[in-house]
Amino acid sequence: MEGFDQSSHESFSKSRAAGNQRLTSPNESLLPDNQWKPCLRSRALVKGCMQQLSRALGALGGAEWAGFMALGLLTAVISFFMDLSVSKLLAAHQWLYTRLEGHMVLQLLCWTLYPAALCAVASSFSQHICPHATGSGLPEIRALLAGVDMPHYLSLTNLFVKLLGLTCTLAAGSTLFLGKVGPFVHLSTMVGAYLKNLCSLIGDNKRDGAGGEMLVVAAAAGVASCFGAPVSGVLFSMEAMSSHFPLKDYIPCFFSAACGATTFRLLSVWSGNRESLEPLFKTHFPESPPFCPQEIVLFAVLGVACGVVSCIYLSLHRWMLGFTKTNRVLIHMLTTEKALYSAALAFFLALLTFPHSVGQYMASKYTMKQLLTSLLDEGQWSERRPNSSLAAQPTPWSEWAPPGCSVFVSLACFLLMKLWMLVLVCTLPVPAGYFMPVFVYGAAIGRLVGEGVAYLSPNRDPSDPASTSLTPGGYALAGAAAFSGAATHTLSPALLALELTGQLTHAAPVLLATLLANAVARYGRRPSFYDNISLSKRLPHLPSLLRVFPGLSSAPIGELLGPVGAVLERSAGLTEVQRVVDSGAHRDVPVVDSSDSGILLGSFHRSDLLAFLHQKKDKDMVETVGDVCCVHPTSAQLSPSNTIQEAHGVLNLLPTHTLFVTHEGKLVGIVTCAEMKRILEEVAREI
Amino acid sequence: MEGFDQSSHESFSKSRAAGNQRLTSPNESLLPDNQWKPCLRSRALVKGCMQQLSRALGALGGAEWAGFMALGLLTAVISFFMDLSVSKLLAAHQWLYTRLEGHMVLQLLCWTLYPAALCAVASSFSQHICPHATGSGLPEIRALLAGVDMPHYLSLTNLFVKLLGLTCTLAAGSTLFLGKVGPFVHLSTMVGAYLKNLCSLIGDNKRDGAGGEMLVVAAAAGVASCFGAPVSGVLFSMEAMSSHFPLKDYIPCFFSAACGATTFRLLSVWSGNRESLEPLFKTHFPESPPFCPQEIVLFAVLGVACGVVSCIYLSLHRWMLGFTKTNRVLIHMLTTEKALYSAALAFFLALLTFPHSVGQYMASKYTMKQLLTSLLDEGQWSERRPNSSLAAQPTPWSEWAPPGCSVFVSLACFLLMKLWMLVLVCTLPVPAGYFMPVFVYGAAIGRLVGEGVAYLSPNRDPSDPASTSLTPGGYALAGAAAFSGAATHTLSPALLALELTGQLTHAAPVLLATLLANAVARYGRRPSFYDNISLSKRLPHLPSLLRVFPGLSSAPIGELLGPVGAVLERSAGLTEVQRVVDSGAHRDVPVVDSSDSGILLGSFHRSDLLAFLHQKKDKDMVETVGDVCCVHPTSAQLSPSNTIQEAHGVLNLLPTHTLFVTHEGKLVGIVTCAEMKRILEEVAREI
Repeated sequence: MEGFDQSSHESFSKSRAAGNQRLTSPNESLLPDNQWKPCLRSRALVKGCMQQLSRALGALGGAEWAGFMALGLLTAVISFFMDLSVSKLLAAHQWLYTRLEGHMVLQLLCWTLYPAALCAVASSFSQHICPHATGSGLPEIRALLAGVDMPHYLSLTNLFVKLLGLTCTLAAGSTLFLGKVGPFVHLSTMVGAYLKNLCSLIGDNKRDGAGGEMLVVAAAAGVASCFGAPVSGVLFSMEAMSSHFPLKDYIPCFFSAACGATTFRLLSVWSGNRESLEPLFKTHFPESPPFCPQEIVLFAVLGVACGVVSCIYLSLHRWMLGFTKTNRVLIHMLTTEKALYSAALAFFLALLTFPHSVGQYMASKYTMKQLLTSLLDEGQWSERRPNSSLAAQPTPWSEWAPPGCSVFVSLACFLLMKLWMLVLVCTLPVPAGYFMPVFVYGAAIGRLVGEGVAYLSPNRDPSDPASTSLTPGGYALAGAAAFSGAATHTLSPALLALELTGQLTHAAPVLLATLLANAVARYGRRPSFYDNISLSKRLPHLPSLLRVFPGLSSAPIGELLGPVGAVLERSAGLTEVQRVVDSGAHRDVPVVDSSDSGILLGSFHRSDLLAFLHQKKDKDMVETVGDVCCVHPTSAQLSPSNTIQEAHGVLNLLPTHTLFVTHEGKLVGIVTCAEMKRILEEVAREI
Repeated sequence: MEGFDQSSHESFSKSRAAGNQRLTSPNESLLPDNQWKPCLRSRALVKGCMQQLSRALGALGGAEWAGFMALGLLTAVISFFMDLSVSKLLAAHQWLYTRLEGHMVLQLLCWTLYPAALCAVASSFSQHICPHATGSGLPEIRALLAGVDMPHYLSLTNLFVKLLGLTCTLAAGSTLFLGKVGPFVHLSTMVGAYLKNLCSLIGDNKRDGAGGEMLVVAAAAGVASCFGAPVSGVLFSMEAMSSHFPLKDYIPCFFSAACGATTFRLLSVWSGNRESLEPLFKTHFPESPPFCPQEIVLFAVLGVACGVVSCIYLSLHRWMLGFTKTNRVLIHMLTTEKALYSAALAFFLALLTFPHSVGQYMASKYTMKQLLTSLLDEGQWSERRPNSSLAAQPTPWSEWAPPGCSVFVSLACFLLMKLWMLVLVCTLPVPAGYFMPVFVYGAAIGRLVGEGVAYLSPNRDPSDPASTSLTPGGYALAGAAAFSGAATHTLSPALLALELTGQLTHAAPVLLATLLANAVARYGRRPSFYDNISLSKRLPHLPSLLRVFPGLSSAPIGELLGPVGAVLERSAGLTEVQRVVDSGAHRDVPVVDSSDSGILLGSFHRSDLLAFLHQKKDKDMVETVGDVCCVHPTSAQLSPSNTIQEAHGVLNLLPTHTLFVTHEGKLVGIVTCAEMKRILEEVAREI
């Protein structure tokens, strides 16, 4: 397992560029290796099977397409079974809580200890086995897809820890108020990484670059399988992950996402949960007319309001991330006593949401799914009073109207309490997603606005059924899309909202609200939620660095370059070559005219140099390295006045690992992926 | 008007790159010009107004956002009024035809001469005023967005000719069977180009690069306004236009598309055509369950079938394009007698579709919109026989079941006849779109399959309303998306189909069918419909060239480079500089160490050289050009072994107009936008 892991690490480096040669560690020999390997016979057997499989798949358009399909299916299966176990765990908790009816203390203990224990488990798991499993994982994957080498984020250990941890976190329910998207994208990327290795094992090696797509596709399939929403899955992963989307990845992304989403929905049908391939949060808004054209102004106001609230949320979040890095007590807790901290925080939050305390005013009995379903309800809450005859029969939103309390009060209470809770819960060292909470929060904002408008609107005439009544659920939908879009700086939540509910009636207002919320949230170059995390974790991710430090876009690369390192003359002899090889040079060793002029001629491949040394040791020749090894022409060269952004772009564009920086023909620096990572990390530290 | 036109031409060159300096013609002076200009007072007045407007807009996030909004609004208004006039013209024709009931010969004349006359008008308009207005325009815009300078495609004359020509073509109705999308994208890009000029006039000149986005945004707004479908508009323009989509254009595209689509729908409401913001082709498929999970296999088969038919269609189209270039009679007709050819072809097609001849078996009385509406009808046609009592009342599909003819026969007749008609009509030299015809054609394929399956399905029990009956309309929808997606090699028709009908019930099967059809159509590197046109017109568009000539992706740029041209030494004197300036050099003149060594040091700006000459003429100095002018460092340099694709990518990535190609430090070539265009044109000629 260890060996497989190691090889996987190596091959992810420079994942976006269509690199067709592996990076090797400096001291590793590139000569044909005839070392002893264990289990030669079973290896041969496996290899034979793989080759047969490869031939069979080759007839069907290549191994990578089978890989994309398998990726979709696998992520959907994982997503479905995770949802299933989470719902069982939530049901168990609810069953226990209902059984203890009448025993207030026992109920309190049940309500608080269950999430605290789950949190402690998730947190200690990730602390002791794989510390990289905590948090969302989406910012890391984003940096990884931008070409930064981060092998520890894709290990097999991480996959299992994340899977178990995330299940525990989700099972803690709406007390913690955390979601699934981010970690699930991380999970599916890890699955994609293993499938990529498998594909390169069985696939034809002619198209080695194709494997690089797998991680991009995996991110899309992850979002799609999470919700059973293929189109918005692809778009969200596109928007959140990359700053430049190559369209050749478009078809594989959609293929894998469609496979994933269809499997996810089919599994629901076959397990008997649903009758047909329905969307997750099916709504029944009135079809014609869904809203009158004048209401568009109200939706626009809602969008702006969501944008403003998201700005408050994001600045609180930014402050909180800074606070955890400066407050001594928190630093101590978060480095050594993660489980204790998680349990304590979960206990505190559960105490607040206990249904016999403040919790009754914030519908805390609902799970995350129930919260969203109730908020998207097509009816109007404020009309049907709880003291009317209708109150006896359970409505899907009865928790929002506790006895003696208006829905407005409970919605406002929910919004006020959850805002700081959401910020607080982001400090929990457990695998957790932060997209679904903001989506639900936005739905609550929209519902409050919608209920308010419906309550104040003059033409709600109960005797006339033809009179156009307002649909507060539509506002909740628009609010959800707008708030989550503003927090993550993406537009695809608008499409996600439509795909999740299966209705296109509110397409125009939802898109409008999301656009306006985004405009407000992006005004003045504010970082998004994921940018906040990236910056706080000092990830070498250029787009998020550019956002908070606009001067970086004009910073020349020349000022940040490290020393050139080993350089060879064309007329170098055995000793110089030996010295350069021993010094652990790059894969491509630059060749200059003479060390005085320093004019760059091209590069020697390290493997050629090794062969030269090998040859030289056998017979005693007087030839120089230039006579034996061929000087490869350099790919594009940069000048020191090119910006970091340009260098990053060229490095990702060209299928080369090494860019030389020259000034007036003279070599002044070398930019590799590792060097770029170092530069970005340095910049991130300085900010 | 002429002057405005001219300046617009210049600024479009290198539209994608964020260039911040204008290209100037070689002999134009860059010194401060104090020439006489007409109307100085009114110019000052306009300038003052513009500056005030600029300040007002600056407070609202900059002029470019106002530009994006105006773009959406303008295209929507144009689209709406074009639709309105087309529907009036169609109604006039239909009114005349119905009035002549009983007079077969007069009816025949009315049926045939009307489209022939319209075609002749459209064709002679474009022949005599602007020959670039014919055809779709989408392949040209695609090449333009890829960085190729094609100013004549964005002239104001072209806009008016295209607008009038397209209205005429559309008014010829389903006889010609042509659509609106392609020319409308061209139209909106022209509008975008003028708005871009306006923005750069009134906007702050700090962000000059922002104007480059306008054309990308215009393409998206064009598709969105054409159908009132914002999301698929953006995605279609993304897929069809570019091979690499920068995400910074994403928000402006969506913003403009949402403005356009909303305005388009609002105009429909205000004009009294529709009650609310409904989609164009609203369907009423049963909600739950829309289809049983087993039907997914049938949808997959439909997708593959659509893919196969699209391959036949595309190869016929390719053959036809080749035939028009080799057949002497056609060449003569298409160069000199465009109007005659168009009228004759339209007359011939109208003769065939005459409702008293073969036309009665292909529902030729319907307009394009009526065809699509009838094909997407939710009911089952084959059940309700025309001889039952229901036949008396007009159904939306009554034309599909003429007396004594089954719907299967008329659908099959439609498919067979329209296939070659579609290919033939592509040769018409009029402004016309080819997306909507393939969309309707695909819907007919889907309807035929759907009706067949519904007819053969065992459980169509009319006494039991709960029994799941098949919805042939769903198959028509999937077929439309799959066929149009396969013909254009895009996936966004799947989303367009959903947005046009306003129902998400069939999202999964539609996406599946489109994916499979695309897989079949792309198998073996076949060119798409737009690639066919690009290749036939020899447009310098790299992605379509790469598709038919895969060897191009590894062709080194060094083999195709032209001569270097004027080069200066650092120690050059007055005469050399004068010679270089007179020879009409590039904007950046390369500077070498000495003409013997040829080591590239950097470049002089042409403006600096002109200043040097100016200075020298006044006083008699002995300084060399290197003492006075500063040597600017080069941006990225290429080597001759870099491929054309890489050079194209780097040229589009960096905000520079000139890339130098060096070998071992020596200058061997220069790559500019113009040079790249020349190289691509040369490659296209050779293929």
